[in-house]
Parts: sequence; C-alpha cells; structure tokens
Amino acid sequence: MPFAERLAGYQSRIEAVLDRWLPPADTEPNHLHGAIRYSVLGNGKRIRPLLVYASGEVFKAGADTLDGCACAVEMIHAYSLIHDDLPAMDDDDLRRGRPTCHKAYGEATAILAGDALQALAFQVLAEDPDISVPAEQRVRMINTLAVASGSRGMAGGQAIDLDAVGKTLSLEQLQTMHTYKTGRLIRASVELGALCSDKVDEERLHKISRYADCIGLAFQIHDDVLNIESDTEILGKPQGSDLAMNKPTYPNLLGLEETKMAARDLLDEALGHLSDFDENAEALRWIATYIVERDK
Amino acid sequence: MPFAERLAGYQSRIEAVLDRWLPPADTEPNHLHGAIRYSVLGNGKRIRPLLVYASGEVFKAGADTLDGCACAVEMIHAYSLIHDDLPAMDDDDLRRGRPTCHKAYGEATAILAGDALQALAFQVLAEDPDISVPAEQRVRMINTLAVASGSRGMAGGQAIDLDAVGKTLSLEQLQTMHTYKTGRLIRASVELGALCSDKVDEERLHKISRYADCIGLAFQIHDDVLNIESDTEILGKPQGSDLAMNKPTYPNLLGLEETKMAARDLLDEALGHLSDFDENAEALRWIATYIVERDK
Repeated sequence: MPFAERLAGYQSRIEAVLDRWLPPADTEPNHLHGAIRYSVLGNGKRIRPLLVYASGEVFKAGADTLDGCACAVEMIHAYSLIHDDLPAMDDDDLRRGRPTCHKAYGEATAILAGDALQALAFQVLAEDPDISVPAEQRVRMINTLAVASGSRGMAGGQAIDLDAVGKTLSLEQLQTMHTYKTGRLIRASVELGALCSDKVDEERLHKISRYADCIGLAFQIHDDVLNIESDTEILGKPQGSDLAMNKPTYPNLLGLEETKMAARDLLDEALGHLSDFDENAEALRWIATYIVERDK
Repeated sequence: MPFAERLAGYQSRIEAVLDRWLPPADTEPNHLHGAIRYSVLGNGKRIRPLLVYASGEVFKAGADTLDGCACAVEMIHAYSLIHDDLPAMDDDDLRRGRPTCHKAYGEATAILAGDALQALAFQVLAEDPDISVPAEQRVRMINTLAVASGSRGMAGGQAIDLDAVGKTLSLEQLQTMHTYKTGRLIRASVELGALCSDKVDEERLHKISRYADCIGLAFQIHDDVLNIESDTEILGKPQGSDLAMNKPTYPNLLGLEETKMAARDLLDEALGHLSDFDENAEALRWIATYIVERDK
C-alpha cells in the first residue's frame, strides 16, 4: 500500500478511536464534554499517534493494542494545547485555524477540559481491554506517559518556556526547554508503540528512543522555521507570533539558514539510529522526513 | 494507641511520603517545583490520605503499600484546589490561610503546577516499588483514580459547579454536583486502601464504597454549614463566600437546621454500611464522625 494511503488509514483510525473514548457531547456535563470534543476531534496532524503506530510496525504489535496508546498520547497532547493557549499562558486566539478552546467555551471550561483529558488519557491506558499485553507492561506504559507529561517532561518544558520569554537563552538552555516541552511526549509515543509488542526488545527500544529524541528536537526547530516562513493561513496561527512575543528561537540564535541545517542534521542522526532496522521501520523513516519538510 | 495519636502518626507519615515524591525545589524548573511544594506541603487536613490508611486497616494492607496510594489521592486533591482557586474559576486569594498558588507564583505557574501534580499522581501509582500488589491490581488502582478525577468525576463536578453559579438547582442537581466534585475522589480513596490488600474482597469493597458515598456528601454538606457558621480565621477563607457568589448550597435549599440534620443522617447511614465490620474499621468510623463535627 502506498505511503500516503497507509498514513491516511492510521489518521482515520485514530480519529475513530478518539471519538469512541471521548464522552458524548450530550452527556452531563455537556458544556465540558462539548469543549473536550471540540478541542480533540477535527484537524490535528496526529503526529504522536502516527509515531505510536509506526513504532508498533517495527515491533510487530497488534493494531488493536496500539489504538489505546495512540489515543492516550493524543489526549495528553490535546490537553497541553488547550492549556498552552490560555490567556495566562501563550494567550492564543486561534488554533488550527479555529478559535481556541477558551475562546469558544470560556476559560474555566478550557482549564477543566484539559484537566479531564489528562485523566482520560490514563484511564484509557489502564482500562482499554484491547491493550493485550501483560499487566506489568501496561503499568510501564502508564509510567512512561506520566513521566513524559509531568514537571520533568511536557509541563516542565512549558514552565521553562514561559520563564524564558524576554530572556536570552543559550543554545543549550533552548534545547533543554524543547526536550522537555515537546521531546518527552514524542519519545513516549514511540516507546509506547514498542511496549505494545508481546515481548519488549530493550536494545531496539533504546534505539528508537534516541531516534525520537532527534525528531522531537527537529520538530521544534522546524516549527521555529515555519513561524518565520509560513503565512497565517497555512499555519493556523499568526505568522511571526513567537518573534513578536520575544520568545527565544533557533533562528534568533543561529540565523535561519543554520537553523535549517540543524534540522537536517537531526534528521540524518534520527535515520542513523534506525540503520539496523528492516523495512518495517519505513513508516518511522517517513515520519522523520515529513517532520522537517512539512509546511505547517 | 489513642486515636488522636494514631491519626497524627498517619498525618506525619503522609507528609514525609509527599515530601519524598515531590521534586526538590532546587531542581529545574525551580519556580514550578517551588509552586508545587508550596501548594502540597503544609497544613492540609489530609482527609483523603487518612481514608486510604483507615480503609487499609480494615483490609489489613501493608502501610508501605498504602503510602503510594495516600500520596496519589492527595496530589489529585491538591492539584484540584490549585485549579479551583484560579481567577477564571472560583478566584480565591486565600487557601488554608495563605495566598493561593496563583497569588504566590503567578497564574501560568499555578496552571502548570496543577497539571504536573496530576501526572505525578499517576506516576506514583505506576512507579512506587513499595506498592506490593499484583500488577493487575495496580492497574485497577490507576483506573479507579483516573475515573474519579475526570469529566465524570472531580473535573466534571467542578464544571457543573461553575455552571450552577447564579442558578437555582434542585436538591437532586446539587447532590449530583457534589457527588462528582468531592464524592468520587473520597470513594476512590477508600477503594484504593482496599486494593492495597493482597486479595480484594469485593463484597466488603462494595460496602466501604457506599460508606464513602455517604461521608463524601456529608463532607460537602458540612462545608456549607461551616461556610455560614465559621469565621474567616478558622476557615482560612472569607466566611460566607459561597453565599456572596450566589452559589447553590444546602442551607439555601433546606435551611440551616435541616441541613445539619441531613449531615447527621448521612453519618448514620455511613456507619450502617460498616455494621458488619470489626474493630479494624474504628478509624473509618472515627473519620466519618470527624467529618460532620469538624470546625474547619
């Protein structure tokens, strides 16, 4: 099956899985459930679920087992976007070309929608009967996601990001911030995919974790590039908004051309970590390339 | 050992456990970790951890196993207080007699402190090596906590509460709101205590769940009473603040005397669910009484 078709298959699959796990909008509390569905369903890139499925291909995991993990990582990601957009945080009015959750549903509901989504992510991992791995492995999945989401993961990265507004960061500090903010959840996505196999191959798990660290950073670097080069219509948020907020970025530190080169180098490094893997790693290779070539 | 001493023992025990699991304030991101420790450590009533330990006594669970569960429920509770106090929610400046988290650390950090605490609660349940139960049971603990925290639990209850400001609720609607907002986590606390035993006794688990439903509601009803009768110094928040915000309360619907009676009735019902239990349920009985007699 051609690549684009396979990915589209996974994308419609994750859409259906999310739809199934999210509480119906006509169940109480309706307003909250409406806000959750509004924020999760629709036009996300679904990169993290794709990474779960792609990693699962490498480890020959069953698609039914992967569904729950793909769903959980996307819920964590979606909740983080809702909270990041809040007036007290990045104060964004637009997300994916639509009003942000707090613009559409109010600030209190947006906070609670994020909170409830985080809980739901862990519920899915703990409860999903289609995740057919030993309970010990399920516990490890939950731990992986929890660590990646917390104060030494995604939430911590956002805290460092907010502290950094208006400050000059070194390249190393900028990297630390991105590693926490985006990198940890991307790494958790491929690790969850690997943990969906019957027997965990620790050596290969280690390799795809390194792969994930590279593409996680490349993803953020490429976001910086897009923030300068794309227009608002494609990006779904105001172009140059990071610059306007005086946020530290790679182009600010390295210049645009060297930033693009850094993303390329990370892509090469990511692919290097997969060099021992066979054709079942094609999806992971494709996603790595997509991440530094996408236009939004 | 006299009762007060045993409870004080548990209280200092949970304080130490929380301190051990919370990231040190001098680790990055420092400001976030400082906010988390500020919000969790100190002078909380620790009712939910006490319920975990007290339920564990009934089921003869090991104290080391109970620690992680006690810690996790208190982290969820602490995160909910941080978020509930936010300007977009209840907009409270004082909590337990001190500035609320967002007053002391800023709004963005308060949002992230809550987010990170929720993740940490699940991390503790998944990771704590001292929780010595089969992995299946650990997964069930995680699921219990996740469901109790989410949109059909605590977060959902807060959403219903916010929707209700300025509206007239029926007694049934008020009860639904409290059941979600406070009751589910209180029930999860005793259930987690039961799940810390080697072998789960489903029948007795069911009975203490019912006990918990009664005291959860009694707790909230008594809070309404305290909100009218106590002064700000004891309560740690402005007296009569619910009334000022035009929030629906039991005294508004039933009058003060009948409200007090309703709390008493729930206490009796709670104790009734424990009638088959031996002296190992004394702590649970004591907590039930404490809940409707406390002065803050």
